[in-house]
Amino acid sequence: MQVVVPFAATEPKTRLTPVLTAPERDAFARAMLSDVLTAITDSGHEPTVLTTAPLEGINQPVVVDDRPLSAAVNNHLPEEPGQAVAVVMADLALATPDSLDQLFTASGDVVIAPGRGGGTNALIVREPAFSVDYHGVSYCDHCKRAAQVDAAVTTVDSYRLGTDVDEPADLVDVLIHSDGRAASWLRERGFSLVPGDGRVTVERASN
Amino acid sequence: MQVVVPFAATEPKTRLTPVLTAPERDAFARAMLSDVLTAITDSGHEPTVLTTAPLEGINQPVVVDDRPLSAAVNNHLPEEPGQAVAVVMADLALATPDSLDQLFTASGDVVIAPGRGGGTNALIVREPAFSVDYHGVSYCDHCKRAAQVDAAVTTVDSYRLGTDVDEPADLVDVLIHSDGRAASWLRERGFSLVPGDGRVTVERASN
Repeated sequence: MQVVVPFAATEPKTRLTPVLTAPERDAFARAMLSDVLTAITDSGHEPTVLTTAPLEGINQPVVVDDRPLSAAVNNHLPEEPGQAVAVVMADLALATPDSLDQLFTASGDVVIAPGRGGGTNALIVREPAFSVDYHGVSYCDHCKRAAQVDAAVTTVDSYRLGTDVDEPADLVDVLIHSDGRAASWLRERGFSLVPGDGRVTVERASN
Repeated sequence: MQVVVPFAATEPKTRLTPVLTAPERDAFARAMLSDVLTAITDSGHEPTVLTTAPLEGINQPVVVDDRPLSAAVNNHLPEEPGQAVAVVMADLALATPDSLDQLFTASGDVVIAPGRGGGTNALIVREPAFSVDYHGVSYCDHCKRAAQVDAAVTTVDSYRLGTDVDEPADLVDVLIHSDGRAASWLRERGFSLVPGDGRVTVERASN
């Protein structure tokens, strides 16, 4: 199956600004991308990185497309029946071969692994008439779009695929549930867990 | 399998104070409890509600224990080898029979469905020497405790079981991924989704 991993190479992860500088956000986003690519490769598939700007040091095929995310992804979706394309977001730092297997082995014209807050974190498209729109409440929009083109939707119930890393609170889950490059990168920069009255947070040791 | 559902009957869900009054938080917590009990029953198990104060209108067995959560739960864990007890939190509004089946059919001395931010949202205990401590980073603490008593840990990778509802942002997931009583309750009170630049939020129509 063709697996596309979209990557925003310019000013990624702006919502991590409270805890990371711009160069750090670049490096952390690259570490997450690397973890996702490794998990896909270890699950037996070869990912293609769909990036908004040229990237160095990637061992997989790279396609540069500076259009907005949805347009760039739609350009890679199946054009004929019988084709299947998976789209896996580059910030799924908790993805493992097992969790991706759940996605890759699921049947359905459209398979969605929903993310927190209405997102579409990972997707398989087998229906040529289907197209993505990542703006808004994309999970709901993708279900509606599938219904419009008579495509059957399957959902994948995975905590790991459901966890995209956008905000400082999300770093907690990376530190707890990953032993990949992104987690190591955070630990090396002094990030650690802080239990609280409500949810756990992270703090960063001062240099 | 014995399935225990702990419920904080007094001032539940205080972190929803920004969007719900105290009586509303009571009613919403009860709606979520009802959804969880229905999902457990539909999965073929009979839940026991472990509540901090008497509850009316529950069709399942109810045990009142006003001790803190961890002490009350530990009182119900297996005392002898061969026993198994599941502990499912009352705020897993997205729980379905299928997602609970993943938990109930998992093998392991200790089975954990982790929640966002280091929580232990659902658990099976088959090792009498194991005990819970829901304070702090409970997922990590439970893994350490299991290692101390030579208990093998299995984790269940479920977005639905991983979603506990504590904060206003969590209501988004209830509105999107549930058609139970809690979701209906929110809709009837005017809650709806608001797409934004980052994650989706909820707003409440004024009366």
